[in-house]
Amino acid sequence: MKVRPPRGFRDFTPDIMILRKDLIARLENVFRRYGYDPIDTPALEYWETLAGKYGEEAENRLIWRFRDPWSGREYALRYDLTVPLARFIASHRDITLPFKRYHIGPVWRHEEPQRGRYREFYQCDADVVGSPYPEADAEIVNLAVDALKALGFENGFEVRINDRRLLRGIYEIDLGVSDPIPLYRAIDKLDKIGVEGVKRELERLGLARGVVEKVLDLITIKMPLRDGIAEIRSRYGNANNHVREALDHLDEMASYIKGDASIVLDMSLVRGLDYYTGPIVEVVLREPRIGSVAGGGRYDNLIGIFLGKSIPATGISIGIERIIDAGLELGIYNLSRKTYTQVQVIVLDRATYHYAWRVADTIRSLGYNVSVDLARLSEKAQKKKARRLGIKVLAFIGAQEERAGTVTFYNTETGERATVSLSETKLGSILDKFVG
Amino acid sequence: MKVRPPRGFRDFTPDIMILRKDLIARLENVFRRYGYDPIDTPALEYWETLAGKYGEEAENRLIWRFRDPWSGREYALRYDLTVPLARFIASHRDITLPFKRYHIGPVWRHEEPQRGRYREFYQCDADVVGSPYPEADAEIVNLAVDALKALGFENGFEVRINDRRLLRGIYEIDLGVSDPIPLYRAIDKLDKIGVEGVKRELERLGLARGVVEKVLDLITIKMPLRDGIAEIRSRYGNANNHVREALDHLDEMASYIKGDASIVLDMSLVRGLDYYTGPIVEVVLREPRIGSVAGGGRYDNLIGIFLGKSIPATGISIGIERIIDAGLELGIYNLSRKTYTQVQVIVLDRATYHYAWRVADTIRSLGYNVSVDLARLSEKAQKKKARRLGIKVLAFIGAQEERAGTVTFYNTETGERATVSLSETKLGSILDKFVG
Repeated sequence: MKVRPPRGFRDFTPDIMILRKDLIARLENVFRRYGYDPIDTPALEYWETLAGKYGEEAENRLIWRFRDPWSGREYALRYDLTVPLARFIASHRDITLPFKRYHIGPVWRHEEPQRGRYREFYQCDADVVGSPYPEADAEIVNLAVDALKALGFENGFEVRINDRRLLRGIYEIDLGVSDPIPLYRAIDKLDKIGVEGVKRELERLGLARGVVEKVLDLITIKMPLRDGIAEIRSRYGNANNHVREALDHLDEMASYIKGDASIVLDMSLVRGLDYYTGPIVEVVLREPRIGSVAGGGRYDNLIGIFLGKSIPATGISIGIERIIDAGLELGIYNLSRKTYTQVQVIVLDRATYHYAWRVADTIRSLGYNVSVDLARLSEKAQKKKARRLGIKVLAFIGAQEERAGTVTFYNTETGERATVSLSETKLGSILDKFVG
Repeated sequence: MKVRPPRGFRDFTPDIMILRKDLIARLENVFRRYGYDPIDTPALEYWETLAGKYGEEAENRLIWRFRDPWSGREYALRYDLTVPLARFIASHRDITLPFKRYHIGPVWRHEEPQRGRYREFYQCDADVVGSPYPEADAEIVNLAVDALKALGFENGFEVRINDRRLLRGIYEIDLGVSDPIPLYRAIDKLDKIGVEGVKRELERLGLARGVVEKVLDLITIKMPLRDGIAEIRSRYGNANNHVREALDHLDEMASYIKGDASIVLDMSLVRGLDYYTGPIVEVVLREPRIGSVAGGGRYDNLIGIFLGKSIPATGISIGIERIIDAGLELGIYNLSRKTYTQVQVIVLDRATYHYAWRVADTIRSLGYNVSVDLARLSEKAQKKKARRLGIKVLAFIGAQEERAGTVTFYNTETGERATVSLSETKLGSILDKFVG
């Protein structure tokens, strides 16, 4: 028998789940602070809902796709949470716009599994539907910054911003690159292969030497957002409408972004997904160098594909999996918490089992997480198990306790011990001190 | 374009999500109170992991199953959370037993969609792995009772208990029914078709008249657990080892179950899944009559299929979807809460946008959920939207407020109003009173 999860898929043990739940709760907290509300959509969509939205690689290889033998319909596992949102908006025409939603859940990609890359992983998305204005893009950046801080990365990250209209206005129209996809693919590798590497790739594409030089000069522009906007305006400000629109939009956006030197205009940022139309954003950790941990942007045409009329939208997806991997590597997170249990009842004598259950129930009703032995373990084995799980408080029950109607608490960290009557009105506050 | 989720699948809007999250949090709370910790497993398993575990109907029709064209491997979407748990235990041999885990997540079934029956739905499971003892089964029942109470069904439910060994010992061995599956299927319909209906089905199966009468007499036994055990003991107590074992187990189990008349021995309870071996449990609401809302039991052989050696286990699955449907129908739940947002900033004047953002940010940093207009709506439209979402507190920002460095709070329920300085140290406690 196969006793592994499928290749590229993972089980989560309690220690990891406790960490994941804590981090997701922090994220949800930030999303709610900004006025975003939760939605959910199915794991499966009809294939035609996803088709044509993500570009060639996703379409042909990365989307998990299958035909249902009963209905003959083609289904796909959702690839991200953005296309399902667009479909959701078209399916729920009564929703009042602008609509600010968050969505946290798994997506599936048929990737070749490797370290830090999984076939099933969570995305944590926040999007504004129904506003074409720079304020919406700015709020998404502020929210992402607050989210990274809430996750414990105080200053350890950089927010990179660019605009699809700048890419189009400069590279395609001003520099006249007629087939820009290979160009963008080359630019996108700057972090990995450096300027020299990109240069070689651009030359291989057969671009004129003058164009290559201009591209290399542009993609190394990475400066604080307002400075970057000014720089591009001085060079290309009058090039064409695409550039002008982008710069005006970014200028206004910058005025709403909480001042922070870690927010930069990065002309090498292109982002892969087909549907972006305006500002694009990526968050990168300074250490470790594991690629982006959040990404998003404006997609003003995607909803229109489903709805027949355009509705502007912008948002960000926070990649909690890479954040967890990075946080563990950096020591910001650890897996030391192995259980939510606060009190382990230790039964010294089989004859007192029923009394032990009464004690456990009483402690539970006071609001504590209590575990009691279900496997008739010896006292030693019960204590060993509590120690392995790191349960702080033991509640000893023996014949003496049963006779006296008491329980003996023991704090495994301080060695403190107290025998308390079960009918003691201060039982709760005594226990509070033990649990801490 | 298709703008619907696939047939049998659902989207969840914020009002429903807010309710679902609240209910799931209550359940998690109960699970943790009893010392259960969370795990997760993939949505997909290899087909051979699920094959042969659930019986014919699931195997041939209800499991979503497909072949991956790249690897040729057959995958299946998980059908419940119990078989994945068994596979999990076999995949993680370092886990200390007994292991008490909870698991909340979607499962997929290729059902014909109908009212209250979906192709994707959540299960909320709690299981004890590694104890063969009645205490473990009893804890699962107590946990289920507490869960139903925490979900708001104070006395509105009945817990039905039976034991697979009783079924086998009485129907198969004592009454000599050699092909029991059709018999069990008929018995299982008692709630739906009544005694007369079951009688007709049994006759149609060709059972001898004496056997039919005995079966009908047995399946109408439904009495408080201890009375039921005594009744069966008086009739079949010496029939064979299966019956004796079951009765002794149930007797000890009953001694740990918190006294409650709503817990009954029900000889018509069979439960469909192939893997049960001991006590089986179902929770049924008194109103509305929508079938069971929780079900489970002991499955001592399932993990052994994966691991090669038997590990006893018992657990319950709480069906949150039916509970939500029932709670809404009964008026225990409602969908009145449409947003987590507590304060809506109302901007009276475009010139004060930047100040409004500062105010929103200040309120946020005090711990409140705050939304600010991103779509340049008129004052009227901003207020209308806040009203539709039921946001209680409005924070008015106009030129006057910006000049004075203040914000004017308005409680839409009481009509109370206060203009407060943003630098006021008591801003938090003032806002507390408004938000309530």
